[in-house]
Amino acid sequence: MTARIWTAALLVIGDEILSGRTADANINQVARWLDQQAIRLAEVRVVPDVHDRIVDAVRALKATTDYLFTTGGIGPTHDDITVDAVAAALGVPVVIHPQARAMLERYYGDKGGLTDARLRMARVPDGAELIVNRLSGAPGIRLDTTFILAGVPHIAAGMLEALNGELEGGERVLSRTLGAMVPESEVAEILAAVERAHDGCQIGSYPFFRAGRVGANFVVRSTDAGALAACATALAERLAAMDIATVDGGIE
Amino acid sequence: MTARIWTAALLVIGDEILSGRTADANINQVARWLDQQAIRLAEVRVVPDVHDRIVDAVRALKATTDYLFTTGGIGPTHDDITVDAVAAALGVPVVIHPQARAMLERYYGDKGGLTDARLRMARVPDGAELIVNRLSGAPGIRLDTTFILAGVPHIAAGMLEALNGELEGGERVLSRTLGAMVPESEVAEILAAVERAHDGCQIGSYPFFRAGRVGANFVVRSTDAGALAACATALAERLAAMDIATVDGGIE
Repeated sequence: MTARIWTAALLVIGDEILSGRTADANINQVARWLDQQAIRLAEVRVVPDVHDRIVDAVRALKATTDYLFTTGGIGPTHDDITVDAVAAALGVPVVIHPQARAMLERYYGDKGGLTDARLRMARVPDGAELIVNRLSGAPGIRLDTTFILAGVPHIAAGMLEALNGELEGGERVLSRTLGAMVPESEVAEILAAVERAHDGCQIGSYPFFRAGRVGANFVVRSTDAGALAACATALAERLAAMDIATVDGGIE
Repeated sequence: MTARIWTAALLVIGDEILSGRTADANINQVARWLDQQAIRLAEVRVVPDVHDRIVDAVRALKATTDYLFTTGGIGPTHDDITVDAVAAALGVPVVIHPQARAMLERYYGDKGGLTDARLRMARVPDGAELIVNRLSGAPGIRLDTTFILAGVPHIAAGMLEALNGELEGGERVLSRTLGAMVPESEVAEILAAVERAHDGCQIGSYPFFRAGRVGANFVVRSTDAGALAACATALAERLAAMDIATVDGGIE
């Protein structure tokens, strides 16, 4: 029997990523965090700061995955429209969250007080709760299975930290990496044959270049530790039979 | 009259990006290259090495943008399924490209010859041409407005280099960055008002943290150099009136 696989999508919101001005750092950060929670990242989309584009993407991704994360567009300025777009996509109004308002009043008490612009940061989709962020202070927003995170990576990291262990996940996908100094094209048939012979295992092949030589990392993935070990052992043996030594990176 | 805006989408294909094992470097690289070609990157998606997911994404992105770029999944192993999926999405068969076959025969002539696995790398959607890559040797694939690039960033870079100036683009979006040591929340109304007063200009606001202080970069964007200059000048003057000094990063 196969356990249920929990899936997530990430929606990165920001003109600055699409223009190339800023290199995204949240995709990898969210991907690694989800992997630790035993939730599979099934899709990522990057869209501009345009209301309808965000609404369409939220609806499409919510329809196919268990969890949705967004990054970007939750600051105080006119181009921060994530909360409105997510609320519109989910069909709920936007309200001022009393706890967020109180946090902002405290924070800005000796910095000129709570202006209309700053109060924008207390706006949430109706029914949402705050993701309290011990690392940077700025809270994220959670509405059921939708998570609205900051675009600035170290602030998003604090929000993910606060969510550690809070989400229902499935069986963790285990992986084991075998590295070899061989062109992947020489062993392609072996990879395919070993994968076919081991149900529930996938083998990915990732070429690299080191000191002018070509090599590849073969990553075996499975939720079943026994199947993973059998598949990795079979692969190492098939490669050894061709005089190809492997370096076992162990289980991650 | 507004000139036509040319748009592109990028489809990143790879389990290793979604698992977090590999940090994508192609999104930023393709975004910057497109910006130089005066083509707007309208959307990015990341999907796993699953045939139907790639087919669906190719079709959805082709329907809404002028150009489609893919990265990843064009090597010799069983998990390299991009060519088949793109061909299926476009409704054309997969064929062996004679020039690609000849290149592989030469390359592998003294490395064990052309095996079935290696010949996989000569497969292209019917009607495609090669993107000859002087930097790394490995060619990309072009079928009309669809471009299939490698996943390894420095190989993809060589393919983009080969495409420099080859695509029809529109007016380039110019940008000018004004940096200031001010929390963006203090100037949010000014940003919105200045943007409203300048047709054809957008102002993005990107907070940063430096030496324990908070600041923001205000990025003004327009395809019209005159409108850009007027908008940036108006913004700098409004900020100066609040005793906020700006550092002008110039036009990019």
